[in-house]
Amino acid sequence: MVLAKDLSHLLSDEANTRVPSPLKTCIKYFNDPNVIFLGGGLPMSKYFPWFDITGTSPLPPFANGVGAPSSEQDLINLKIPRDNIDVLEDEEFGTISLDKALQYGFSQGHPQLTSFFKEHNKIIHKMDKYEDHDVIATIGNTWNLESTLRCLCNKGDYVLVEEFAFSSTLTAVKAQGIKTCPIPMDADGIIPEKLDELLANWDEDKLGKIKLLIIVATGSNPKGLSLPVERRQKIYDLACKYDFIIAEDEPYYFLQTGQYFKPEERPALTNEKIDHDEFVGGLVKSFLSLDSEGRVLRFDSLSKIMGPNTRIGWITGQKNLLTHLFRFHEVSIQSPSGFSQAIVAKTLNSWGQAGYLDWLIGIGKEYKTKRDFCIDSLYKHIPKRLLDSKTVVINPPIAGMFFTIDIKSENHPEFESKFQRNGKLVEQHIYETVIKQGVLMVPGSWFETADCTIADRGGVEEPKKEIFFRGTYAAVDLEKLDQGIQRFAKVLDSEFS
Amino acid sequence: MVLAKDLSHLLSDEANTRVPSPLKTCIKYFNDPNVIFLGGGLPMSKYFPWFDITGTSPLPPFANGVGAPSSEQDLINLKIPRDNIDVLEDEEFGTISLDKALQYGFSQGHPQLTSFFKEHNKIIHKMDKYEDHDVIATIGNTWNLESTLRCLCNKGDYVLVEEFAFSSTLTAVKAQGIKTCPIPMDADGIIPEKLDELLANWDEDKLGKIKLLIIVATGSNPKGLSLPVERRQKIYDLACKYDFIIAEDEPYYFLQTGQYFKPEERPALTNEKIDHDEFVGGLVKSFLSLDSEGRVLRFDSLSKIMGPNTRIGWITGQKNLLTHLFRFHEVSIQSPSGFSQAIVAKTLNSWGQAGYLDWLIGIGKEYKTKRDFCIDSLYKHIPKRLLDSKTVVINPPIAGMFFTIDIKSENHPEFESKFQRNGKLVEQHIYETVIKQGVLMVPGSWFETADCTIADRGGVEEPKKEIFFRGTYAAVDLEKLDQGIQRFAKVLDSEFS
Repeated sequence: MVLAKDLSHLLSDEANTRVPSPLKTCIKYFNDPNVIFLGGGLPMSKYFPWFDITGTSPLPPFANGVGAPSSEQDLINLKIPRDNIDVLEDEEFGTISLDKALQYGFSQGHPQLTSFFKEHNKIIHKMDKYEDHDVIATIGNTWNLESTLRCLCNKGDYVLVEEFAFSSTLTAVKAQGIKTCPIPMDADGIIPEKLDELLANWDEDKLGKIKLLIIVATGSNPKGLSLPVERRQKIYDLACKYDFIIAEDEPYYFLQTGQYFKPEERPALTNEKIDHDEFVGGLVKSFLSLDSEGRVLRFDSLSKIMGPNTRIGWITGQKNLLTHLFRFHEVSIQSPSGFSQAIVAKTLNSWGQAGYLDWLIGIGKEYKTKRDFCIDSLYKHIPKRLLDSKTVVINPPIAGMFFTIDIKSENHPEFESKFQRNGKLVEQHIYETVIKQGVLMVPGSWFETADCTIADRGGVEEPKKEIFFRGTYAAVDLEKLDQGIQRFAKVLDSEFS
Repeated sequence: MVLAKDLSHLLSDEANTRVPSPLKTCIKYFNDPNVIFLGGGLPMSKYFPWFDITGTSPLPPFANGVGAPSSEQDLINLKIPRDNIDVLEDEEFGTISLDKALQYGFSQGHPQLTSFFKEHNKIIHKMDKYEDHDVIATIGNTWNLESTLRCLCNKGDYVLVEEFAFSSTLTAVKAQGIKTCPIPMDADGIIPEKLDELLANWDEDKLGKIKLLIIVATGSNPKGLSLPVERRQKIYDLACKYDFIIAEDEPYYFLQTGQYFKPEERPALTNEKIDHDEFVGGLVKSFLSLDSEGRVLRFDSLSKIMGPNTRIGWITGQKNLLTHLFRFHEVSIQSPSGFSQAIVAKTLNSWGQAGYLDWLIGIGKEYKTKRDFCIDSLYKHIPKRLLDSKTVVINPPIAGMFFTIDIKSENHPEFESKFQRNGKLVEQHIYETVIKQGVLMVPGSWFETADCTIADRGGVEEPKKEIFFRGTYAAVDLEKLDQGIQRFAKVLDSEFS
């Protein structure tokens, strides 16, 4: 196997300036039995005021479904003892005892956690195209983006983003003084040919080198799209051609709900156990799995899979780039919480890789059920005349948690009189009216990426003409979801009467 | 009471650019019973794979000492249930159930945690000089510094730091492109008159406005000094006069070990319970307690008190500044780990404020014992001739975890022949020799603050002439400590023979 390409020319000034703290160079003597360590302010673990932590989790294969209450589930008892686990030799590999979990060190994450993620990566992404890849444990994808931006981009740099993107991503980018260059999208996601055209005509002398593409390729936010593998390959090839890094931000990767079918055409959900190979084979190929040069930094997170505030995620990529990311950990987050690492590592290692796949299959099933129910509900409640006239278009997602509804604002009876032919005013009006009726849907304009290239050329960006709303089927149960959609549909009915 | 001064002119470009994410503005509807929330990707808590988390901690007043094993302690059982705790009405205030702990939201920390810290602040710092102060929960003081720098400083700005400072602090500052301006220190810490002089002559037009002083005022790192209250008041007055913010970084605040006495003059440690008022009254006044304008951001951390990788700390200061800090959370760390918040909040609220004071008293006692033992051991093992000739000077600390040993490098027999009259070479030689003899002590030069004003005036900084080593009595037990010091002393004996 080959080694990753040296991409150190893509590092930010900050990453290049951030030398390892000299104190970190001597921490290696902390566990050296021949050296008495009077070097760093590491409190003795006997002063940690917890003797043990225990918990219960459901037992794979989660026969009653991943959301079933404890009384319906077989349970696993998780026990995290205070000390004396030799992590490498003990048969209970997977346990991070509290004396180690709550101590300093391991800014890359504890091996009991990262080795699980590495093994998982092999199963899902193969990881057989270059040799020197690794995993660092992090505190989730919000952080993964923030730290990647800090390590790759300087103020004034451009990054490539989707035409519609997660608003917090755009906030983070903007606050760092980084500019956005949106890539046009269609119903399959960003369009490789448009990206190629954009980069072929990029004025690097004037606008600087583009070093990074940020993309939520599976279950994109807000659109719920999933980029087909052919496009992924083309975009990866462009990354090699134009020398940039792909930050593949994949919190929704395992929520691949597949194509939506109307109830009458829908294959019945069986209770048959899904084969692991079949499940893995059915997942869209990741950028990571295509990566032969070490150009992909993949962001994974447990937020949508096990719980947002576990604050556990990980980054996979070439070792040289990861070194800069965890060196940043040392002066910022230090490492993910010890309690989180210990509890999550114990849970995952107790489940095993097969159990974790069962969990992912189970979670995916729940979201497929919710997605189907949600789209059914939209078709049921939104008046047929609005759908027929294409005043309202429902976009069934194929991955993730979100769905969108396009609205032809010019069909609003007061489009000229009240809203001065401005779609954004219609959008704001519908947003507020809908809240008053007791349901919250998010205006699509919140996700619009500013095209900073226009500003840099002295132009003014036209507001996009599309109007849409983003909803989610994640946050509420089916009954409420139906009720919420009904309320939303009622507003559309009366507004476009 | 008055309100804090408006200090928004001291914010960084980044903080001024970082608008709240629009999605965060609608999260308030998540708990509104009248609104069905289809707004954000919040997974339902029934998909969190833990039914409960429990733990055991020692029970106040920790009669057998804070480091005693569980078998010698009375225990508290901590139970964190899955759900259905109404946090404001339930009698078990202090419990953050898992459904809330592991969900998004609360980038300022859960109220069960922050309200405990606020109450604690009242006891320790009074907080009666201005009205609009608050607390945000964070992931520790490394982060507190990082986020404060991001919110106050631009690249190229100068910050005031101690002449000798924690090396990771200096690394963090430098990586952000911020420059350091050291304040001279003596045996009591930084010297107010020197600071006044420095600021009176500061060329703001050329060097920019100074907006921040970073200081570890109690148990300073590496020196173990503690700034007397008179100096704190003078420095606070200078902050008002010259309009800067004091970042009071206080991980060691509760490790105030007091003056060192030789064994024969030392008052015997009694087992009598220390009165809480007496304990609080005996603590050196914090900058926070002197703050009448809202110019102090105090960093507290549980790292040295309960365990480093709890990754729980907090910042106290005026609300307007805190708003910018937690708005940064929203696009970076989100919030401290839910497991950490739930376990720590449950522990602290179970102990109560009085129990927590007992814990702090107990921890302080342990460190006083270790400090005394350590300094005794130094006097015992370092040859008297080296102390008499002031070749070696022992500096007993009065707070914190660290002690320093000054060494007169010019007394080394090979100072001219082998080390070319360069103290740094002597330092490096001793560092390496000491490791070979099986003990690690940290060279003082690792803590030297670069004086960037010199570089900006076209000069070259002379390496400081002082040579010293920093040790800690935190990381090992008494027996090993003695053995380590003996090894170190043996090296000094043979090097300076």
